Amino acid sequence: MARNKHPEETLNLILDVAFRLFMEKGYEYTSIQDIIDNLGGLSKGAIYHHFKSKEDILVAVTDRITAESNQMLAAIRDRSDLNGKEKLKTIFKESIMRPVQNDIFTAAPDFHNNPKLLFSLLHDTIEEAAPNYIFPILLQGISDGSVETEYPEQLAELILLAANVWMNPMMFDSSEEESYRKFMVFDQMLRGFGLDIIDREMIERLQELTAIYQDNK
Amino acid sequence: MARNKHPEETLNLILDVAFRLFMEKGYEYTSIQDIIDNLGGLSKGAIYHHFKSKEDILVAVTDRITAESNQMLAAIRDRSDLNGKEKLKTIFKESIMRPVQNDIFTAAPDFHNNPKLLFSLLHDTIEEAAPNYIFPILLQGISDGSVETEYPEQLAELILLAANVWMNPMMFDSSEEESYRKFMVFDQMLRGFGLDIIDREMIERLQELTAIYQDNK
Repeated sequence: MARNKHPEETLNLILDVAFRLFMEKGYEYTSIQDIIDNLGGLSKGAIYHHFKSKEDILVAVTDRITAESNQMLAAIRDRSDLNGKEKLKTIFKESIMRPVQNDIFTAAPDFHNNPKLLFSLLHDTIEEAAPNYIFPILLQGISDGSVETEYPEQLAELILLAANVWMNPMMFDSSEEESYRKFMVFDQMLRGFGLDIIDREMIERLQELTAIYQDNK
Repeated sequence: MARNKHPEETLNLILDVAFRLFMEKGYEYTSIQDIIDNLGGLSKGAIYHHFKSKEDILVAVTDRITAESNQMLAAIRDRSDLNGKEKLKTIFKESIMRPVQNDIFTAAPDFHNNPKLLFSLLHDTIEEAAPNYIFPILLQGISDGSVETEYPEQLAELILLAANVWMNPMMFDSSEEESYRKFMVFDQMLRGFGLDIIDREMIERLQELTAIYQDNK
């Protein structure tokens, strides 16, 4: 068959198909052959031109979701109608409410068998999200009096590690009850920095996502 | 040469030699051949009988250090002269003061290239150390009034993840200044749970270990 002349389109097609299959079948149960079979006649060579392994595809799928998430984070960070604490609350709420979360928790990748994905999550959290989005918001919070810390850079890291890694049910295979208890400890931790931002709606949503994960893992 | 008739002794010899070389040359710069060369005539087959890779040896070396550490943790947990908060403080102090820490930070393994070591650290922290040592101490602290939480199981995990992973300079390649700032945020976090347990001696020791790591990485 003819070679694809638009690598960008091919790439996006692969990611769309892979994401849908990971979602429907779960990451562990999707093979590269399954992805090829759903690419409408695209060759094995075309997919290996872009990706070395299934894990590489997962990282690229995750990166695309992260890029969308970063746009949302930037928009909240740059609002002028909220103080630091309100921005942080808005970020948590919008992050956890995003419908794509249902898809991610349905795909339920097993991080223990995907070290690249774990590193990609850790790297993105510590090197990108913390300094670019949470740190400037905490800085604002210090100057408007809504956040209590002398070390906003480090607090940004700790908050995101707790939220994105520790409280991620896919990371530590938490039950709904455990997710709830982690969120309560996270709330108490945040209050130590003046941040009373966790509400019932967020807690219920985390439990809902945990249930989706537990049903699909 | 003759086959070794004492597999336990061979195993310990391999771990002793590997640990010393990792310490002297650094993990990255030690090859399996270096280890064999220092085993006094033991064959390549003998080492591969016990370990599949250099990373496996590192995990076994780490497991042995962890086993020693767990004895210390159990001894403090079982003391009858301290309340919960005092036990936690004693654990942090003894852990960070242990001379073997100098060796570990000198060996300075790069976690980013050793996913098995990272998983081994995460697993040991969440599945072993938190439930077996920190959780019962927090439970005691709740009943004697020295710890404020309703969720000791989850708090145990959060405290150890922060201390063993986030504040581990080998994990995130922290400078001395960053280590200091992380420790300050950790202190503020602990105070939110009634735990004023970080003192100057611990902070200086963490900075000392960070400096050792930075000099040897």
